[in-house]
Amino acid sequence: MIDLQRDGDVYVLRFDEGENRFSPGFLGAVEEALDTVAESDGPGALVTVGTGKFYSNGLDLEWLGANQDRFEEYLKRVHGMFARVLELPMPTFAAVNGHAFAGGAMLALCHDTVVMRTDRGYFCLPEVDLGMSFTPGMNALLKERLPRATAHEAMLTGRRYTAEQAREAGIVQRTAAEDEVLPAAVELAAASAGRGGGTVARIRADLYRPVLDALHGPALP
Amino acid sequence: MIDLQRDGDVYVLRFDEGENRFSPGFLGAVEEALDTVAESDGPGALVTVGTGKFYSNGLDLEWLGANQDRFEEYLKRVHGMFARVLELPMPTFAAVNGHAFAGGAMLALCHDTVVMRTDRGYFCLPEVDLGMSFTPGMNALLKERLPRATAHEAMLTGRRYTAEQAREAGIVQRTAAEDEVLPAAVELAAASAGRGGGTVARIRADLYRPVLDALHGPALP
Amino acid sequence: MIDLQRDGDVYVLRFDEGENRFSPGFLGAVEEALDTVAESDGPGALVTVGTGKFYSNGLDLEWLGANQDRFEEYLKRVHGMFARVLELPMPTFAAVNGHAFAGGAMLALCHDTVVMRTDRGYFCLPEVDLGMSFTPGMNALLKERLPRATAHEAMLTGRRYTAEQAREAGIVQRTAAEDEVLPAAVELAAASAGRGGGTVARIRADLYRPVLDALHGPALP
Repeated sequence: MIDLQRDGDVYVLRFDEGENRFSPGFLGAVEEALDTVAESDGPGALVTVGTGKFYSNGLDLEWLGANQDRFEEYLKRVHGMFARVLELPMPTFAAVNGHAFAGGAMLALCHDTVVMRTDRGYFCLPEVDLGMSFTPGMNALLKERLPRATAHEAMLTGRRYTAEQAREAGIVQRTAAEDEVLPAAVELAAASAGRGGGTVARIRADLYRPVLDALHGPALP
Repeated sequence: MIDLQRDGDVYVLRFDEGENRFSPGFLGAVEEALDTVAESDGPGALVTVGTGKFYSNGLDLEWLGANQDRFEEYLKRVHGMFARVLELPMPTFAAVNGHAFAGGAMLALCHDTVVMRTDRGYFCLPEVDLGMSFTPGMNALLKERLPRATAHEAMLTGRRYTAEQAREAGIVQRTAAEDEVLPAAVELAAASAGRGGGTVARIRADLYRPVLDALHGPALP
Repeated sequence: MIDLQRDGDVYVLRFDEGENRFSPGFLGAVEEALDTVAESDGPGALVTVGTGKFYSNGLDLEWLGANQDRFEEYLKRVHGMFARVLELPMPTFAAVNGHAFAGGAMLALCHDTVVMRTDRGYFCLPEVDLGMSFTPGMNALLKERLPRATAHEAMLTGRRYTAEQAREAGIVQRTAAEDEVLPAAVELAAASAGRGGGTVARIRADLYRPVLDALHGPALP
């Protein structure tokens, strides 16, 4: 489901469960992997990547449908995963190998740098067309991590961005062909691993303080 | 003075009083039209447009000069109009057919998308050259709706932006020739009307919460 | 160390002490010069410029090393200088003639407009590689004055931006060859001096209220 490998200073966390939706099992495996990564001392960098056509499609709506009484608790756990990535004491890279939808798109935005596959796959926040609004934590994350005009368009129209469109809109920083997405992210990660440590974590947490406060706060309005 | 038409799912609200300054009569007519639009249920979208050379020149300084004791009450009403547009439960489009100055420029920015006429007309915040500062509500709106560098330049230099310059600066999303401005806005509106409803209103209100709080708060510092 | 000249409506404040680090003597001279400039009434504009290879390299780490017990008091004084520039009642221009590093880069960002030399010199926030984080005031300044993606990259990677890269990233507004940097800034200043006065100060202070609050607040978290 989740595979964590270390190659020199670079951790590669691979999501490998189809659409990579945030099932409780998926969340548990990611939490465990992030614990391992966060304990790392000194140089280090993290790359996350999906498999096949999907980076991640976000919330596990099927599980939620069967566990509606646990909605808030579940959201808190998702918020916690977002916060953990934002708080990691090292540079972080999302290798977006395929679709990054909804919560999966937000997870990508929790990384310092996003490299997105060019020939296939969309970045999309489909919530508006599903009749869903964003939690306070998600709203804060999107608002602070995207250029204003992009946050407005992405959140209010549900536009599907190709890699090139996502780069123009300031959503992703790099694009690459399918088989170059992960290598490009790993290469960037290796080059930045010397910056791993508490300083990066402090600067990032200060810069995104309102986001972290919202993610650690109530999951629902 | 104000003309509200419905064409399928698209409401077209035309301002038709010369410079379209916010006189009490103008404000009353707009409030009534927005009431009608807001009551609409299900699919829907709004386009606002002016007439001739003007989209709107904003505050009615002549009326204000004769009614200085009603300044705060008047500003609250203008703020209320801005907030009403921001809170509409449907996609909104400003067809900027001519000058959008001061409060008129801000009214345009309350819409999701601005289409601006290319051959004539400016977007301009002339307040700095009139010795006027911005109310807390206007300051919040401009700060949150414009890219940072554009807010700084527009508010502190009073630059007049042509349509092309306004698009480059991230003020408007589309440009069109004079006779294409309204048709382009209506076409976009019709294509987005399926997104009308409470979800759009909730997402937009969450995204612009600090702006709405400022617009609903004290009109003066 | 500091030279203040007036040419028509334009004040030119030249930093002329090597790397132009913020020694107590440097800060005192700048404070005095800014007092003079701020007392100016009516039309006016300010240009700051360094000498030779340096605009400013920021904090005087050598002096700080010998005066560690005065760290907080020293930071408050630096914050005060940043706030003074942000609060000046006239348009302000930084003629970045050479390196603008760390606090020197932040000082440049306190001006309305930055003109940067093309052939030599970098804009750089090296803090992350020095194991330093940013004070609340500095964090707020960088967060509000830079496009989001640029603040993230500049603060978390320590990237050195050439003038062209800084313009693309939205850090500076103009670039010019070495011997044109100061003349270009003075020309812009002269053209904008008519906007000098309290209105500019009020609009700018409202726009950067969170930054000014942070700069006037506790220097350390």
